[in-house]
Amino acid sequence: MAYYQSKPVAGRHFLQIPGPTNVPDRVLRAMDNPTMDHRGPDFGRFGQQLLEKVRAVFRTEGPVVIYPASGTGAWEAALANTLSPGDRVLMCETGWFAHLWQEMADRLGLKAQLLPTDWRRGADVAAIEAALREDKDHGIKAVCVVHNETSTGCTSRIEEVRRAIDAAGHPALLLVDTISSLGSIDYRHDEWGVDVTVAGSQKGLMLPPGLSFNAVSQKALRAAESARLPRSFWDWRPMLAANATGYFPYTPATNLLYGLDAAVDMLLEEGLDEVFARHDRFAEATRRAVRAWGLEIQCEEPRHYSSSLTAVRLPEGHSANALRATILERFNMSLGNGLGRLNDRVFRIGHLGDFGPLSLVGTLGGVEMGLAAAGVPHKPGGVQAAMAYLNGNA
Amino acid sequence: MAYYQSKPVAGRHFLQIPGPTNVPDRVLRAMDNPTMDHRGPDFGRFGQQLLEKVRAVFRTEGPVVIYPASGTGAWEAALANTLSPGDRVLMCETGWFAHLWQEMADRLGLKAQLLPTDWRRGADVAAIEAALREDKDHGIKAVCVVHNETSTGCTSRIEEVRRAIDAAGHPALLLVDTISSLGSIDYRHDEWGVDVTVAGSQKGLMLPPGLSFNAVSQKALRAAESARLPRSFWDWRPMLAANATGYFPYTPATNLLYGLDAAVDMLLEEGLDEVFARHDRFAEATRRAVRAWGLEIQCEEPRHYSSSLTAVRLPEGHSANALRATILERFNMSLGNGLGRLNDRVFRIGHLGDFGPLSLVGTLGGVEMGLAAAGVPHKPGGVQAAMAYLNGNA
Amino acid sequence: MAYYQSKPVAGRHFLQIPGPTNVPDRVLRAMDNPTMDHRGPDFGRFGQQLLEKVRAVFRTEGPVVIYPASGTGAWEAALANTLSPGDRVLMCETGWFAHLWQEMADRLGLKAQLLPTDWRRGADVAAIEAALREDKDHGIKAVCVVHNETSTGCTSRIEEVRRAIDAAGHPALLLVDTISSLGSIDYRHDEWGVDVTVAGSQKGLMLPPGLSFNAVSQKALRAAESARLPRSFWDWRPMLAANATGYFPYTPATNLLYGLDAAVDMLLEEGLDEVFARHDRFAEATRRAVRAWGLEIQCEEPRHYSSSLTAVRLPEGHSANALRATILERFNMSLGNGLGRLNDRVFRIGHLGDFGPLSLVGTLGGVEMGLAAAGVPHKPGGVQAAMAYLNGNA
Amino acid sequence: MAYYQSKPVAGRHFLQIPGPTNVPDRVLRAMDNPTMDHRGPDFGRFGQQLLEKVRAVFRTEGPVVIYPASGTGAWEAALANTLSPGDRVLMCETGWFAHLWQEMADRLGLKAQLLPTDWRRGADVAAIEAALREDKDHGIKAVCVVHNETSTGCTSRIEEVRRAIDAAGHPALLLVDTISSLGSIDYRHDEWGVDVTVAGSQKGLMLPPGLSFNAVSQKALRAAESARLPRSFWDWRPMLAANATGYFPYTPATNLLYGLDAAVDMLLEEGLDEVFARHDRFAEATRRAVRAWGLEIQCEEPRHYSSSLTAVRLPEGHSANALRATILERFNMSLGNGLGRLNDRVFRIGHLGDFGPLSLVGTLGGVEMGLAAAGVPHKPGGVQAAMAYLNGNA
Repeated sequence: MAYYQSKPVAGRHFLQIPGPTNVPDRVLRAMDNPTMDHRGPDFGRFGQQLLEKVRAVFRTEGPVVIYPASGTGAWEAALANTLSPGDRVLMCETGWFAHLWQEMADRLGLKAQLLPTDWRRGADVAAIEAALREDKDHGIKAVCVVHNETSTGCTSRIEEVRRAIDAAGHPALLLVDTISSLGSIDYRHDEWGVDVTVAGSQKGLMLPPGLSFNAVSQKALRAAESARLPRSFWDWRPMLAANATGYFPYTPATNLLYGLDAAVDMLLEEGLDEVFARHDRFAEATRRAVRAWGLEIQCEEPRHYSSSLTAVRLPEGHSANALRATILERFNMSLGNGLGRLNDRVFRIGHLGDFGPLSLVGTLGGVEMGLAAAGVPHKPGGVQAAMAYLNGNA
Repeated sequence: MAYYQSKPVAGRHFLQIPGPTNVPDRVLRAMDNPTMDHRGPDFGRFGQQLLEKVRAVFRTEGPVVIYPASGTGAWEAALANTLSPGDRVLMCETGWFAHLWQEMADRLGLKAQLLPTDWRRGADVAAIEAALREDKDHGIKAVCVVHNETSTGCTSRIEEVRRAIDAAGHPALLLVDTISSLGSIDYRHDEWGVDVTVAGSQKGLMLPPGLSFNAVSQKALRAAESARLPRSFWDWRPMLAANATGYFPYTPATNLLYGLDAAVDMLLEEGLDEVFARHDRFAEATRRAVRAWGLEIQCEEPRHYSSSLTAVRLPEGHSANALRATILERFNMSLGNGLGRLNDRVFRIGHLGDFGPLSLVGTLGGVEMGLAAAGVPHKPGGVQAAMAYLNGNA
Repeated sequence: MAYYQSKPVAGRHFLQIPGPTNVPDRVLRAMDNPTMDHRGPDFGRFGQQLLEKVRAVFRTEGPVVIYPASGTGAWEAALANTLSPGDRVLMCETGWFAHLWQEMADRLGLKAQLLPTDWRRGADVAAIEAALREDKDHGIKAVCVVHNETSTGCTSRIEEVRRAIDAAGHPALLLVDTISSLGSIDYRHDEWGVDVTVAGSQKGLMLPPGLSFNAVSQKALRAAESARLPRSFWDWRPMLAANATGYFPYTPATNLLYGLDAAVDMLLEEGLDEVFARHDRFAEATRRAVRAWGLEIQCEEPRHYSSSLTAVRLPEGHSANALRATILERFNMSLGNGLGRLNDRVFRIGHLGDFGPLSLVGTLGGVEMGLAAAGVPHKPGGVQAAMAYLNGNA
Repeated sequence: MAYYQSKPVAGRHFLQIPGPTNVPDRVLRAMDNPTMDHRGPDFGRFGQQLLEKVRAVFRTEGPVVIYPASGTGAWEAALANTLSPGDRVLMCETGWFAHLWQEMADRLGLKAQLLPTDWRRGADVAAIEAALREDKDHGIKAVCVVHNETSTGCTSRIEEVRRAIDAAGHPALLLVDTISSLGSIDYRHDEWGVDVTVAGSQKGLMLPPGLSFNAVSQKALRAAESARLPRSFWDWRPMLAANATGYFPYTPATNLLYGLDAAVDMLLEEGLDEVFARHDRFAEATRRAVRAWGLEIQCEEPRHYSSSLTAVRLPEGHSANALRATILERFNMSLGNGLGRLNDRVFRIGHLGDFGPLSLVGTLGGVEMGLAAAGVPHKPGGVQAAMAYLNGNA
């Protein structure tokens, strides 16, 4: 039973939106400890080891800034720390969240050049390269890509974007949103030469929302020296200065940091590679279920399949929102809605975070029973197909 | 991840033994409050409303004694309060727990007369009636029946036992163990004329183990006046005296009482009849899965099917314990082992407590995948069959 | 024992910095519930009642914006929503936090006109009025005042500031920081004609840090229409649009909202007036202790005494930081350090939030024993004086 | 705010009864983890290390039996495992709990020989020796002593009792109740030759009530072979057999075991000797406060002063219960009531468990203010005296 639930329902809620994800008890219990003095000596020790430890999750040896703010704030931080009013940024409109990021750039006084997609695949790397080659005078200051587009279930290939930028010989910064991929899908801040990685707490990191992150390259730090967008709360400089001794320039979200400490331990104990393999496996099982039902996966490009969520298209004339309402009502499971142009056209299954094979089977069972209950044309057998796959690979 | 887990495993553990059951967060959070003064005025108010409220779950208007002890203690309490050294008791050996109760009776100096079964059905009501009719001088002082035999998944018909005792015109007390049925399977202490109902916290009541109960009839209270088994900790009399004002004669398990308060609220908010219907539905879905797999249900008598657990027999030559080990290792689910003569022959699926349809699908999925992984001959399709049933009835 | 504590110490930590404060168990337990779908129907219902309920704490009937961010962010939001680059703001430099707010204004491209104080009293209302009267062409767009200066323990009289603005006939907005006063010291957003009230979760609201607030007047909303500081994360407009149905434009800090819901209930159950009276009483008891010790209170103006904290000056030649270290080491209590020019000169006793008379006695006892242990010249009897006062008034 | 509190009160409740004690957050959070399968492999590992680790607290290398029951049950277990109907036991009536133990012995069919005291000192060792010397035919089978009499605050010298038994050359078993001393007052099961140590979870072990203990000597185990009191739930033999592999013969109170694991870690991290020294220090500080108030300590024999609680006598004509009610109402602190013949004559201050110096100052402050508020004649200055002592020794 959730904190505020309108009617009594037996059994644990299945929170299968693509984030926030099901927070493991170990993280909730860590968060549930008394708040400590964020200026005291114990905090400094705690902060230092945490700031050090969290780098592993980004696969970086550089600094990771932690904001007491949700993921949208970390987007703003990435822009505000590196850019100046009127700067041009190249953005790949891979879906709703890429679109929102572009809206934010506009509001902050940047000029976004948009590379559209049909919302059924990741970023168009060739188009990025072409746009950069065309930008002879290097007016483009940053390339912004959403690693995993939460609205479509398409993952962009960041290493290819990196190569495209390099191939074009362009000095633009590479800013990447990993809000729904970090801790779920293989990601390498240093190796892929990302300048700012934007992340949030409530997805693969298995925390409630309320923390967000910027992993920052040396190049980004240099850019921050000359960037002129006004910034204060988001400013990396006082943050990094205070972080050096384990502290924060203003009050951090202490209890969420406790949770982060526990969550990073869990990821590292399982091993990042095993975490990614687990997500890959569950994603493939989910796609097999979708195909068995005879439904269409929103992502059309197999190389861009997301391992953290799957967006499923409904047959024409059927309402994804009605389906989700039926599933919530009957089976106590929340699924993600379609966003923007996909509203009512797709539903999204989150299969990320603290999630095991039986939770996945339950999740897919809820979808399969929901399709029948809501009268959506489909073939049964999705769960069966997923189990066959899981069992051969579990 | 459990409190003490030997290796990191992602996702919530499926605790599908037939108790202890998955404790809902609302109950855990209630238990997690500071312990209060068990002699202070707030405790008296708390105790009174709780002792009143808990009666509804037993469907009694008489007193319910709450022990700070696990269920085995409540068995002992039922015997020690009502019987005298050397007293004869009639016991139906419906399975392992009935057997343990009989062992306890022996240890306490009672003389148990055993009515055997083949552990594949509930109590033999005709045999009870016959034994009582034969007992012309009323040497039998109590009839002891396990309502739901947790080792076999067979539920005895207590209302029929009542009628058998009445038909025989026998004055014996009726003592019933509802440890794995209370709060899961329809049970009526008053209406069925039960004298002592024995219950525990860790099954349908959705609490951790550590509390147990005796619901007590007026006839049992009278028997307690002359019973001569030595008793102190278990003695109803000081307990009922203190309970009158909401207190306990010795320190109660305060934090478990907080949990009980929350758990009873949850049961009553859902409604007992809906709780029972939910368990019936999940049990039938489980049996359909078992049949689809081509496996055999331990309970042979449909009228005695248990709604809180299903014991499943393995084909000859296959080890239920090996299957359970595989399922635990691969799918992070605990299932019940076979007890006594059923060791390694059956495994038991608990489908009781705070449990919803998707948890059930996940549970059955774990069994189905486990059967394949462990090489147990079976047909796939069990989950499918369960979902078809659930969906028609959910 | 705190989450991360370098050495084992028996007994509960006394977190007597002037915030974050001791979070009550009821709030921690609320926060410890599973995260829910922030787009689902239950969230809308939850959000609406919470957004409505929280207004009472600000004593406003207008909107209260809740950010998933710490208090510093709410400062930035107040400026960014109402002002344009180059705008002049009048700021009263009452202490360290007022100073930080001014630094922020500078960073955001505003022009702060500073009215200094000696950090031993609240805002100089006459100086505000004079400055406004001088500003014939109304170049000053906002007057920024810290209600309760956490660095000095001086509370400014906001109702007098209001009257000064009115007396000057000046159209400037009134922005007030109540981070360490809200829920502790009488405050009236509507009655005092405040345009933006800035607040945080971790002080009188008894939550961990991570939420912050803007209560917003109609005049401020109008100013937001024409304000030109770039803003996106902090923008009130999409926030208020989403709040109308109980939702948020980006992921809210759900679990902290659970805590807020519990905390507001606690404040309203106790009654705001009683909450304020309790804080007044504890503050007076603390000052009596300080005087009995023969030490000097940082605030020199009795009309400006803070009810949420007391800053205490050390005799020349004695280190406040050494004293605090001794108290932390020996007595497991955290006190606030001196900030800015007061570093090592004062220590600060937080007596706000979920705090009762015996916690206060323990707190003052820790200070009194610490003074002796650290060799700070003082007279004993502070606790005695506080108890005498408390007892006459409790 | 407690789980069930009749009116809202700010600040943490001071639970200063001599048990249950204030449960530390670390223990509550451990208990708040999901219940695990008590028959699964992880439980066996958990159980073995816990059963091993807990021995250190009793200072024994022999077995410690853990019951899912409160302390009164462990008394019954000590008697039922070692004695036979009609056996004589020598009991020292040091106060209310010794009296209750004797009542229990009577109810179980034992013959208790009582050595009275005036309830103002510990056990009369000379009288024990005399009684044993007189018992030429060794009819006395056990000597039962309460180590720390919770009703009077008098601690018996168990090592002297041991010497007395040895001096008398008597083979009686030595059974000792350490319910309110274990983990608070120096105690040595092996060194002092105790045969059964009875303990509970809710005092020095810092847990909620619901677990209890028997530490058992080899001599006691031999006695158990021939003892004939009926026993089943309390029987050591199946318990020890199951414990050998980390399991329990019936369902253990799993979540309380999690708490025990955390609590024992806390005690061992602090170090038992430091734990005892801390309790000694706080007890002496409390007695100095009592003397400063001009009140009388119930314990008249300094060698028997209890380090876990202090019982304080009220002047003739004043009601201890009225005083406690005033303190609860005004200061949100629970104190222990007078028991049996001491009802309304004494109040008891618990200063044991997870308790630090500032909690002690707050506790004593609550008593001092309460004495004034309730009109009990006394001199102020108790807190002052305690602080002076603590500070010199902290």
